[in-house]
Amino acid sequence: MEHPVPGGLWGEKEEEEQERVLVSKHMWRPCPTARRRLRVCLEWVKQQLFHVGEDWYFLFILGVLMATISFMMDHLVSRVYAAHRWLYQEVGDIGVLKYLSWTLYPTALATFSSGFSQSITPHSAGSGIPELKTILMGVVLEDYLAIQNFGARVVGLTCTLMCGSSLFLGKVGPYVHLSAVAAAYLGKMRTSVTREYENKFKQREMLVAAQAVGVATVFGAPVSGVLFSIEVMSPHFAVRDYWRGFFAATCGAFMFRLLAVLSSEQETIVALFKVDLTIGFPFDLLETFFFVILGVLCGLVACAYLFCQRWAMVAVKRNWLTAKLLATESVLGVHPSVCLHPLTMKEYLTSLFDNHTWGGRAPNASWAAEPGGLWQEWDHPSATIFGTLAFFLLMKFWMLILATTVPLPAGYFMPIFIYGAAIGRLLGEGVALLFPRGLHPQGPLRPIIPAGYALAGAAAFSGSVTHAVSTALLVCEATGHLGHLLPTVLAVLVANAIVQKHQPSFYDGGIIVKNLPYLPPIRSRHTASYRVVVEEFMQRQVVALAKGDGFQEVLGALDASSDAEYPVVESAESPTLVGTVSRAQLVTFLQSHEHPQAPPGEKVAPAGTLGDDCAIEPVMLQFSPWTSLHQAYHLCQLLKLQRVFVTRCGDLVGAVGWAELRKGIEELANPKG
Amino acid sequence: MEHPVPGGLWGEKEEEEQERVLVSKHMWRPCPTARRRLRVCLEWVKQQLFHVGEDWYFLFILGVLMATISFMMDHLVSRVYAAHRWLYQEVGDIGVLKYLSWTLYPTALATFSSGFSQSITPHSAGSGIPELKTILMGVVLEDYLAIQNFGARVVGLTCTLMCGSSLFLGKVGPYVHLSAVAAAYLGKMRTSVTREYENKFKQREMLVAAQAVGVATVFGAPVSGVLFSIEVMSPHFAVRDYWRGFFAATCGAFMFRLLAVLSSEQETIVALFKVDLTIGFPFDLLETFFFVILGVLCGLVACAYLFCQRWAMVAVKRNWLTAKLLATESVLGVHPSVCLHPLTMKEYLTSLFDNHTWGGRAPNASWAAEPGGLWQEWDHPSATIFGTLAFFLLMKFWMLILATTVPLPAGYFMPIFIYGAAIGRLLGEGVALLFPRGLHPQGPLRPIIPAGYALAGAAAFSGSVTHAVSTALLVCEATGHLGHLLPTVLAVLVANAIVQKHQPSFYDGGIIVKNLPYLPPIRSRHTASYRVVVEEFMQRQVVALAKGDGFQEVLGALDASSDAEYPVVESAESPTLVGTVSRAQLVTFLQSHEHPQAPPGEKVAPAGTLGDDCAIEPVMLQFSPWTSLHQAYHLCQLLKLQRVFVTRCGDLVGAVGWAELRKGIEELANPKG
Repeated sequence: MEHPVPGGLWGEKEEEEQERVLVSKHMWRPCPTARRRLRVCLEWVKQQLFHVGEDWYFLFILGVLMATISFMMDHLVSRVYAAHRWLYQEVGDIGVLKYLSWTLYPTALATFSSGFSQSITPHSAGSGIPELKTILMGVVLEDYLAIQNFGARVVGLTCTLMCGSSLFLGKVGPYVHLSAVAAAYLGKMRTSVTREYENKFKQREMLVAAQAVGVATVFGAPVSGVLFSIEVMSPHFAVRDYWRGFFAATCGAFMFRLLAVLSSEQETIVALFKVDLTIGFPFDLLETFFFVILGVLCGLVACAYLFCQRWAMVAVKRNWLTAKLLATESVLGVHPSVCLHPLTMKEYLTSLFDNHTWGGRAPNASWAAEPGGLWQEWDHPSATIFGTLAFFLLMKFWMLILATTVPLPAGYFMPIFIYGAAIGRLLGEGVALLFPRGLHPQGPLRPIIPAGYALAGAAAFSGSVTHAVSTALLVCEATGHLGHLLPTVLAVLVANAIVQKHQPSFYDGGIIVKNLPYLPPIRSRHTASYRVVVEEFMQRQVVALAKGDGFQEVLGALDASSDAEYPVVESAESPTLVGTVSRAQLVTFLQSHEHPQAPPGEKVAPAGTLGDDCAIEPVMLQFSPWTSLHQAYHLCQLLKLQRVFVTRCGDLVGAVGWAELRKGIEELANPKG
Repeated sequence: MEHPVPGGLWGEKEEEEQERVLVSKHMWRPCPTARRRLRVCLEWVKQQLFHVGEDWYFLFILGVLMATISFMMDHLVSRVYAAHRWLYQEVGDIGVLKYLSWTLYPTALATFSSGFSQSITPHSAGSGIPELKTILMGVVLEDYLAIQNFGARVVGLTCTLMCGSSLFLGKVGPYVHLSAVAAAYLGKMRTSVTREYENKFKQREMLVAAQAVGVATVFGAPVSGVLFSIEVMSPHFAVRDYWRGFFAATCGAFMFRLLAVLSSEQETIVALFKVDLTIGFPFDLLETFFFVILGVLCGLVACAYLFCQRWAMVAVKRNWLTAKLLATESVLGVHPSVCLHPLTMKEYLTSLFDNHTWGGRAPNASWAAEPGGLWQEWDHPSATIFGTLAFFLLMKFWMLILATTVPLPAGYFMPIFIYGAAIGRLLGEGVALLFPRGLHPQGPLRPIIPAGYALAGAAAFSGSVTHAVSTALLVCEATGHLGHLLPTVLAVLVANAIVQKHQPSFYDGGIIVKNLPYLPPIRSRHTASYRVVVEEFMQRQVVALAKGDGFQEVLGALDASSDAEYPVVESAESPTLVGTVSRAQLVTFLQSHEHPQAPPGEKVAPAGTLGDDCAIEPVMLQFSPWTSLHQAYHLCQLLKLQRVFVTRCGDLVGAVGWAELRKGIEELANPKG
């Protein structure tokens, strides 16, 4: 054979060669020991960071994702808005065209926004915070956190925001909803990876972090994002969740500001609505008095606003015509609000927080002559700035109320914030006019800074409308100015004291109007809540099942009430509460057992009893008839329970649900006789 | 009768006259209707404000009182400190005298402080926060909130602070304890006025507000005072209490700063440790990396510090000699720490937060030449400022640990805060030295600001030692500078992530060392907590009483265990849990019933049973054997319960207390086999 099979030989050789190359490659990479150690080290770090159960990476993803969306939305909106302005200018001097281009555009956008989002899901209208608040109280709202809401919300909200200031609507509420939906989706993803969790707990933790992200990525304010979401959302808070909220909100806020830097909008990370107030002498001590007055004023206006807004929402719902209009997704309400200031929300805030004193005999006229200053929008030739501000406040009052009745995916926090800033600015300019040299005419010249009042007003009005105190901090974080923190907190507290006494918050109002489950607060002046006991207001007729019950009784119970779970007692004679059984279990029981009176078929179903064939859940919490209303209320709130059974010496005697508690609390406020 | 009784006539006349005058006075005061209306109006306002149940005036009094005391204390301390310095200078150049005047003075003060406060009450040593935390978790610590603690604390704390920086101790912790004592006392006063409250609820609400006041009046920072107290104190928080905390803290902080203005220390209300950083360009984006490094560094140092500190406290307790020394109230530990920097705590902070870059080839030498700059204290001729800072850090590390072992009434937050600031400053100066022209050498000159690192370092170190995130905000509020908020929060989060994983917090460490009841946290990586059920770790041998039990059995039960309450079951045969009966009740039962074997006396005591003669409290919460550890833990934390009974189908099968929970949690962390 002269021709050996070269393939074979070559093959062998090749393998050897390859092996040698591999070995030598392995050998000749520098420092093999060090590299092995490094690999072990990395493995350890990975194990430490990505331990099952740690969920920081989910929080991180949530924060970054929401920040990116928020920034993109802002960017898109500002571009479209610029286009709209350009269109308006290019149209020329023809009045009709000008008018049409100015009004048709937002109307079309709003109609599309409302129609599009409504057609996908009915949950996408309005602020979204009332529903989230209800969910966090333990009520199950089906589909509210489904992922299809996400798309509808994003598109709808973007369109709403593109209308610009014509609609005067914000994005905080929907954005909180958006991040809750994203969190719920991420949570589901995680659960599919690691099945070991109790989902309910984890779900809740993610939702709480999501709220914080929602607020933080809109304002770029991590700390007050967390605080505001705590205050607005739930009556109780676990410090454990606080950390999560902080982490996610910081990631979100950082990303949000980072994107602004990367897109060359800003040089470095600074506050979103940066103001430039003199911080050497922010305010005179005597001005505290005016800040308190501002608080009172904001409180009163907030009361009026909340009352009118709730009234309008109910009226629109009741009225046949408007209900019809809403159903056909018309956006007539938008039209009248189109013809006011042509500023964006950000321009509004920037101008209202402007460092200069507009009114008064401005001694430093140099800045006033500068063209292009935003504040000049407020200085109408035929009216002083006081007139413009007052007109603005008057018009926006009813426009804002009208806007809340339109089923648009939009937030109402931002407009309220701006409205409050305008109230503060008006008062501040008034004070500056009265005391042009400051409150100490003898001392050095220390003019009043009206922007400080605008800050305090924004915080006080938005805080009192939402029953939150942390807006004081939000103002500081969003503007990067801390000098006015103390008077701002004072104004917020005063305004809150007034509103909390007389009106439910904006979000609670939404819950009431939408007929969602709602527990009114117990005021601390209702000391009777410690004396009224559960026995006086509990529901005495509870549909209960006995351990020995069969098909007939179960069927009867399912017909008699629509509760989610039924109490199970020992027997009809000795009604000792043994546990509860869920409705789903009972339905399965009915399906697996045959009706005793049915004609006997071929397969004989077992004639078992409830006690044998159903999983009876033990009861964890039960009230006695002498539990006080105060205690029952707080336990229900704390443990997020909808219904608790009342036992006397172990025997079931009644039940207390939210409806009973609400009745009890309302009787406290308006005692009979 | 020529002489009619003039007195009578005159008397009548006088009365008439008087009446006329009164009437006319009444008539002629201006606007009687308006005045009446005003009176009605005032009456209404009074009714609105001072309604029974409203407690804002108590919160107001608390805030103002604590702020006044805090300010007076600061004032006194600064005076005494000035006197000490004067003494030191006046002594002349004699070395021995100088040394003695410098060391004897603080040693004497510290000895007095320790001795005085210990002699009045043993509770006045240390920070006080661990005990308060335990109280807020529902444990009753007798006498800890008694009013005599107040005096002992005030005198002791003032003396400790007078030692100046020699002791390097702060006042936050004791001050929180002080305001809790004041709140408890105010609460008692109120209760004696209106008996209708459930004291327990109100007491708790006041305590929560008191913590906030404690922190807020020390730093003059209302918002972060509330937040810090929330984070440090309790694992759950009611938003209702949040409002109270905010109000009280704002009153306190306002009063605190107001007193500074009234005493002409300051022109108007500004931050306590005001800094003057350029806010136009606070930090470069790339610096974020260094802030994260700073967070890691602070986290590692905090871990080491916490470990050593706990070790030292245990060692001192165990060691026969030191335990003896502590018992005889010696303050030997003070001595070595006397000979370092002669700065007050405030001067430390002000110098560390100084705007200038100390190291590097400072291009702006004009400020450096200025005499009297505090920063020069750090610039020793024989060492660079790096050397001084490193030496400071090294020395203070063990001094601080030593100081915590001495039973002085003093806080450890402030020293930790300063320590963190020094770490940050050191890193910041290092970065500034490396990049003298900023991180973008091509662009405009943007030098690194080391003070920003000092801020972040203070927040990160103090936050990680106390397991709190809100120190980031505290730094901002205390310095009035918001520009570095985001990197500060980042550093705090990183440092916290490291420390929370490896060490209990400073206050939890105190709880552990003092053997107070303690529940370790369940880490989120311990997913087994959802799978482990109560049955696996519950206490199975529970001393129970039956309804029909008499004298003999009750006596036996009281002997067998020392629980505060005993479960009562139906009968020994069917152990259905009926309720609980308190130990006090049982003792009364024993006293009112006679021993059955006692010789029959003249009065025959009733031979009643437990069920007839004792008030059996219904059980509200009970676990089933299948309740998960996670759920049991959170319910105990949420409802502040020390012990919960476990029932299976109504029958008592065990109990779960903190000891059992702790065992269960520790087994999660170190599973057997």
